[in-house]
Amino acid sequence: MATAADTHAMRRAVTLAARGLGSTSPNPVVGCVVTDASGRRVGEGFHQRAGGPHAEIHALREAGEHARGGTAYVTLEPCNHTGRTGPCAQALVEAGITRVVYAVADPNPQATGGADTLRAAGVRVEQGLLEEEAEAGNTAWLTSVRLRRPYVVWKYAATLDGRIAAADGTSRWISSAESRADVHRLRAEADAVIVGSGTARADDPHLAVRDIDGVTQPLRVVLDTDARAVRPGARVLDDAAPTLVAVAEDAETALPDVLRLPRDGRGLSVPALLEALYERGVRSALLEGGPTLAGSFVAAGAVDRVVGYLAPVLLGEGPAALAGAGITTITEALRLDVAETVSLGPDLRITATIPKGA
Amino acid sequence: MATAADTHAMRRAVTLAARGLGSTSPNPVVGCVVTDASGRRVGEGFHQRAGGPHAEIHALREAGEHARGGTAYVTLEPCNHTGRTGPCAQALVEAGITRVVYAVADPNPQATGGADTLRAAGVRVEQGLLEEEAEAGNTAWLTSVRLRRPYVVWKYAATLDGRIAAADGTSRWISSAESRADVHRLRAEADAVIVGSGTARADDPHLAVRDIDGVTQPLRVVLDTDARAVRPGARVLDDAAPTLVAVAEDAETALPDVLRLPRDGRGLSVPALLEALYERGVRSALLEGGPTLAGSFVAAGAVDRVVGYLAPVLLGEGPAALAGAGITTITEALRLDVAETVSLGPDLRITATIPKGA
Repeated sequence: MATAADTHAMRRAVTLAARGLGSTSPNPVVGCVVTDASGRRVGEGFHQRAGGPHAEIHALREAGEHARGGTAYVTLEPCNHTGRTGPCAQALVEAGITRVVYAVADPNPQATGGADTLRAAGVRVEQGLLEEEAEAGNTAWLTSVRLRRPYVVWKYAATLDGRIAAADGTSRWISSAESRADVHRLRAEADAVIVGSGTARADDPHLAVRDIDGVTQPLRVVLDTDARAVRPGARVLDDAAPTLVAVAEDAETALPDVLRLPRDGRGLSVPALLEALYERGVRSALLEGGPTLAGSFVAAGAVDRVVGYLAPVLLGEGPAALAGAGITTITEALRLDVAETVSLGPDLRITATIPKGA
Repeated sequence: MATAADTHAMRRAVTLAARGLGSTSPNPVVGCVVTDASGRRVGEGFHQRAGGPHAEIHALREAGEHARGGTAYVTLEPCNHTGRTGPCAQALVEAGITRVVYAVADPNPQATGGADTLRAAGVRVEQGLLEEEAEAGNTAWLTSVRLRRPYVVWKYAATLDGRIAAADGTSRWISSAESRADVHRLRAEADAVIVGSGTARADDPHLAVRDIDGVTQPLRVVLDTDARAVRPGARVLDDAAPTLVAVAEDAETALPDVLRLPRDGRGLSVPALLEALYERGVRSALLEGGPTLAGSFVAAGAVDRVVGYLAPVLLGEGPAALAGAGITTITEALRLDVAETVSLGPDLRITATIPKGA
């Protein structure tokens, strides 16, 4: 039975884990709290970036000798394999930890088995405390590992009547400064940011994260099917963040290092793109493209979460947020669950997700 | 200075007033609480329908002799004129009330002066307690009296991407059963419900209020410019509620008792319609028409409140909620304030209003 102190410690570990969002891929975010034999908190840590120490190692270092006879609370099952760092299960045993409480089992076949190793060494192991909260914090990574493609968040900003621009194409600004700042937080939490050629041509976007300290910049991805939108000198080609331009297999381009993908209709194959990104370690992507690109992702069943910035504005004309998703009648509509509604200045931010099991 | 007991009594009066919403036009909603000389609540009432007793009279009747030396809390300045009922100011004096606290001054030139009459009779009079709450409860009526046209609430139901139907026209159901039931509450609070010929033709709507006991049915208004949409036998012509069909001055129709209005573009003049409705005592109207009709109201500056039922659904094609509002560039966009966001089953209900002073 978990005590209130156990729950408190695990909740702290979940909070710590979230600090790693956007910088740990291809690894998950993990948080760890270590208490001594009397239950006093003596160490904590979180996984900061791939190749760096795991959360448990940070927490054990801080705890030092106080870990002996103590408990470790970890949001994910401690790993069992020697990758770029040693196995955490072994480190916990060596530090003298006698009880390990973890929230979520590791679905990664390479890393799993940590619980067994701990038990074999005589450590008491308990699983499931705050499992839902810990899973929610790792949704992108867990979904990605399961589907073997990045978890995709589609972000749009629209008026109450669903327009993303006026009839003459003007759109600065439909959403508020608060909403636009919030988009940088979404970018910071993602491993990649994706736009299409329409957005690249119309806006010459920069796509890097601004005004967030210590951020790991996401990979900027432009789907430029015919290799006509991204020109030398485009802002997305500067060195503020890495950039990947994807073009059709038969497109002619002067850019070096492009990703070549098969065509699908008028654009590029979304599944092929996502497979290529996954292979590069991208576990979460923010889709910032226009209505057509968003439509091709929806049609491919490749939108996991929708974040809509809804401005209390009416236009009556202008392009809608989503187009060409291949849905023609109401029974085929994509039905989501509203996960959260938040006020951002004058706007509302609505987050919706694909229902579980759908 | 208002005491906590004063505030409590006035809040009760505001709550009572709201019970009259939808049935008092052309009068405002009013609530009243009467306490005796010791501050004990001895009577309460609200204005139930035009021609019936005012709130003060209901409360004084319940209080009887206990009103002597007591206080009356009224959401609106007691009236001073003899209409279908006698002046409330005089009734309060005769009942022996020695203090009157009211929230909002009466803007109606025919009815104002009640406070002066009370003061002249030696009654202590205080104004302004919970003025904002009481005003909010009477927004429709106060706005209507100021603008000399009905207060217009535009209601729509759309997907996250702003569609009111799929590409093939199907729309049953985009919004949830909870949202659809809520629309009946909106209808019940309105004096009139307005649709256009497109909706009349496509849906043959009934437009009466269902499943709300003791409701005063709103006037059903169909704008049938060319007199081609409402045919004998249309559901809107049954006797569940009164109905007004408006047609162009030159339209040929077999229907009796139509309202003839000047044309404006492809439809009817919205200002002329609203003037005619105001003359018939309509102080609040619920606009349930399609995108074109809503666009003509927005273009005429005749939308005071927007209630959007937003379903967490994506379509990617299909008509938008609003069209032809005459807005072509972002600087001309109609900017509103979000007043409230409420969950209704899976949907969100977003209420937005024209900013004060706009």
